Formats: sequence, C-alpha cells, structure tokens
Amino acid sequence: MSLDRMIEKIVALQNPTVAGLDPKLDYIPQYLREEAYARHGRTLEGAAAAILAYNKALIDALCGIVPAVKPQAAYYEMYGWQGVRTLYETIRYAQEKGMYVILDGKRNDIGATMESYAAAWLGLTPVEDSLEKPFGADCLTVNGYLGSDGINPLLKVCGEQDKAMFVLVKTSNPSSGELQDQKLESGETVYRAMGAFCEKWGGELPGKYGYSGVGAVVGATYPSQLGELRAAKPSTFFLVPGYGAQGGGAKDVAPGFDKNGLGAIVNASRSILCAWKKTNAAPEDFAKAAAAEAVRMRDDIMGEVGEIRLPQ
Amino acid sequence: MSLDRMIEKIVALQNPTVAGLDPKLDYIPQYLREEAYARHGRTLEGAAAAILAYNKALIDALCGIVPAVKPQAAYYEMYGWQGVRTLYETIRYAQEKGMYVILDGKRNDIGATMESYAAAWLGLTPVEDSLEKPFGADCLTVNGYLGSDGINPLLKVCGEQDKAMFVLVKTSNPSSGELQDQKLESGETVYRAMGAFCEKWGGELPGKYGYSGVGAVVGATYPSQLGELRAAKPSTFFLVPGYGAQGGGAKDVAPGFDKNGLGAIVNASRSILCAWKKTNAAPEDFAKAAAAEAVRMRDDIMGEVGEIRLPQ
Repeated sequence: MSLDRMIEKIVALQNPTVAGLDPKLDYIPQYLREEAYARHGRTLEGAAAAILAYNKALIDALCGIVPAVKPQAAYYEMYGWQGVRTLYETIRYAQEKGMYVILDGKRNDIGATMESYAAAWLGLTPVEDSLEKPFGADCLTVNGYLGSDGINPLLKVCGEQDKAMFVLVKTSNPSSGELQDQKLESGETVYRAMGAFCEKWGGELPGKYGYSGVGAVVGATYPSQLGELRAAKPSTFFLVPGYGAQGGGAKDVAPGFDKNGLGAIVNASRSILCAWKKTNAAPEDFAKAAAAEAVRMRDDIMGEVGEIRLPQ
Repeated sequence: MSLDRMIEKIVALQNPTVAGLDPKLDYIPQYLREEAYARHGRTLEGAAAAILAYNKALIDALCGIVPAVKPQAAYYEMYGWQGVRTLYETIRYAQEKGMYVILDGKRNDIGATMESYAAAWLGLTPVEDSLEKPFGADCLTVNGYLGSDGINPLLKVCGEQDKAMFVLVKTSNPSSGELQDQKLESGETVYRAMGAFCEKWGGELPGKYGYSGVGAVVGATYPSQLGELRAAKPSTFFLVPGYGAQGGGAKDVAPGFDKNGLGAIVNASRSILCAWKKTNAAPEDFAKAAAAEAVRMRDDIMGEVGEIRLPQ
C-alpha cells in the first residue's frame, strides 16, 4: 500500500534511479528490428515485436543494477494494441526479473472511470466469477487536476493490492510554470497546492519508512522547488524526471533526498536507451552500453547522496 | 484541423449529443456475454469479445441518430491489451458507420512523449518507410496541467490530419473545485486560466464555423460556469459531461450553446448504455432501448436549443 517495496529495492542495490523504457523504434539496433520484421512484416506487429526483444535484453542487463523501470505508455500506444501487448509483456518480464515497475501513464479521471484505470494498471478486473490481471504494474503516475474524485479510487486499489502512485506536482518541462507556478490567492503556487494534496492523500497509505504510497513527480530541472518540496512534504517520495537528456545533473537532484539518502528516485530514459549510439558501441552491445550508462548515472548520483539507509 | 467535421454531423442530424461508450461488463446482456465466453473463455479475451459485439450493435442502432461516440479508454484498458484491441476495432467500426469518434483518454505529457500520444490516438506512426495508423480517432481529450509543451505536439498532428482535441477545463465531479475553483493572484480561477489557454491554443487551429480545433471539457453539473465560459470563450467548443446519470438536465446544459445552437456537445454514457435495464426491455432489445433513450435525450436538449444552424 506504500512505496516500501520500491524503497527496499533502492536500498538493496544502493541505487536511487529508475530506467525509463521509452523505446522509440530508431533507438533499436537495426539487426533486432530486421529480425522482428522478418517474422511479422514492417507493420505495427513487427515494430511491437522488435520493442519487446529490445526491452527484454535491456531488462536482463539492468535488473542487477537498477531497482525499477518506468515504461511510458505513449511509446507503446503509438504502436497500436500490438504495442500495448508489448507493454503488458514488458511489465511482466521486468517483474519476473525482480524489478519494480512504475507505469508512466499520467492517467486521470473520476469515480467509476478512475476505478477502471486503477483495475487496469495496478489491480484486478472481474470477468464474471474470475479475477483477471490486465497489466499488473506496481505503481502508476497520475494527474491530479480533477481533485480527490480522481485519486480516491486509486487509493483504494493501492491499499488492497500493495501498490502506489506518483502524482504530477512540478513537471520538468519549460512550460510547466504556465499553470503550475501561478500563485493562488492564498500565496501558494498551484504546484505547492498539489504537493499539499499529495501529503493529504498519502495519509491513507502510510509506509513503514516514513514515506506514503502517494509520491510526487518533481522535475530535476527545478532544483530549488525540489528542495523546497523535500523540506515541506516529509512523507512524500519524489519521482524526478529531467536528469540527463533534459539537462538536470546530480547536483540538481540532490535536494530531493533526505538525510538517509531516501526520498527520491531519479529517472533517465534516452541516455540509457541510446547509450550504445552515444558511445559508438557495436549495435550488438546495446544492452551492455545501457548497463554501463546506468552504472555511471548511479555513481554520479550516489556521489551526492552518499549511503542509502533505511531509517532506524 | 478543427471541429468542423463534427459540427457538420451535429447540424445534419440536428443532434448536439455524443454517446459515451463506457462498456462495463455488467451492462451487457448475459446472452451476448455467454456467446463470447463460449468462443474465448471467461477471460480478458472473452470479455473484450463481448464488449466488441455489444459496441457494434449499439453503433448500428445509434449511427443514424447520434453524430458521435466517445469511447472512454479506461473501460477498455481494464480488459488488458485485449480490451485495447476492442477499442481499436470499435473506433474503426464507428467511423465506417459515419460517426465522429472522440477518444476520451485525458492524455497528457510533454515533447516527444506527447508526440507519441498524438501519433497513437489521432495520427500516424512510421514503421521504417511505411506509415501505420495505430488507432485513428478523430479527436482526443487531454489534460493541460503541463502547459503548452503538452499541447503543441497535438496541435501539430491536428493541423496535419484534420483532427481536434478537448482540454479539461471544469470537470463535472464534486471535487473538481479543489484545484479548478481556486483563485489565482490575478483574480481568475484556475479553470478560467485553463479556458484562456484553450482560446490561445485554438488560435492555431481555426475553423470555418467560428470554433477552433481546441475545445474544452466543461461539466453540465456547473451550469453557471458553463454560461460564463460560453460568453468569455467564443471560439471554444464545449464537450459537456454530467448530463443524465451525474444529475445535469437540459436546462443545465443550455447555457453552453450559442445563438445558432452550436458551441456544445453533450455526453451521456450510462443512461444510454443501460437503457434496456432501466426500461425493463428484453435483453435482446438492448440496442433498440439505447436508441430510444438517445432520441429522448436529443429531444430533451433540442427543446432548449431550438434549431441548429451553421453560421452565415
């Protein structure tokens, strides 16, 4: 019901990072694509098969180094239902390899519809007397613009199934301020108001290490907001995008961590997925290059964080 | 690139409503479910097959009455990738029958990720030299919390592919006010600020009937906000949920329309999908009962709207 399972994996691997699995087709070595096309044609089906092969090799290479993966739903939906099937198979494979899976879907709706999203991504769906698992991720990113009606159904499923969520608070993009930085009458900004909602919602999902099951997405590209939110929201764990390709570095993410080295998990996608291209590695070594970049990123961030300890 | 195609269908059928295709399994007559289970088992596959048969019969019955359908992604995702395949087939079937398809996915992200959502739901995805159509809906609902970085990629695809979007502004749920009604320093509420963004973004997608390709979701449960936004945002078309099951009536949606009877399309889901249960119709007559309820809803709302005309 909290992020405890993720926290334990972070501590075990001494690595507060997550690998974003955002597999654009041109990140995948040509030989792997051609193998898939030979079986399925140059179709959505073929693309989806290539992505699955690529993801599995990456998961094999990363599972001993990185505690979690974060597949981004959009990169699978763009290959149709065939891509969504690859997403399902990716989630399952990563969990088999012991990884924590954060589905980055930024889902949002209300009432019965949000219950359906919760069942889809984290829970179970009844088909007559049988309970089926549609996708079964460990954690879902959500957008809180609709208020509690959009979060309560997910809180319920997280409580029952030992799952968790991250709510968008301060995103990493340049235009995030258009709405999120606007000041409310109270003097708070919109993103601070959203951060306060997270603390409140998280009260329903307490964790044994001080962090609830309702985390917040806070971009590495806004280090001062990250530090301010860390101090103000002691029970809210942060998912921090924007490291690497988007410009954030280890010093930028450091304010997200607490004195135990907990409190944040930093995402990188492109820099890991495309490491083989950037280092001019042989295409066959794409997974090895991804692992090397994951180690570099871990060491870079751990240089700021020091040791990660469970609180006494 | 605008909502012109939808507007023309509304005028042709003299019906400013959209049928929400939110097919929960227990809305579907048992005989239809059993037929699907006999072929596919009591599995996600069987549930997805039952939903497809149900949707096709509803579309057959509604396509001469209602200009548009709005499938809600959550109700398909909850049946796994098999459900998402049914969503794909539902979109295609509705379009074959001449209906305009609004995919209610409330998607949101930034940059390349939002480009992927745009390709997934409205556009085309390149697979090497070939361009594939993943889902091909006509219109997508989106959440604007991330600002322009989340909308611009979709504006581009809408412009190229003659598609459109609806942005969440003031949602129909009781807790929508938690964030949306908060006042900004400027004196505006958050939802009014979002409405102003819609007018600005819509400038990129002008339509020949005065409405742009960037509409706004504004709930029927807040009629005074609907009227206030109608007056303030003359080029923003409204998608209005909350009629029927959520408590809004014809008088509540009336403020959303302009003097030509345009400017709003009103959604109902449960009241149409479950009409056969509410009227105690024979299960075999479920589609006929849905059509009768769609006619009742049309007449109810047209009683307030009068004739719908294209502006001179």
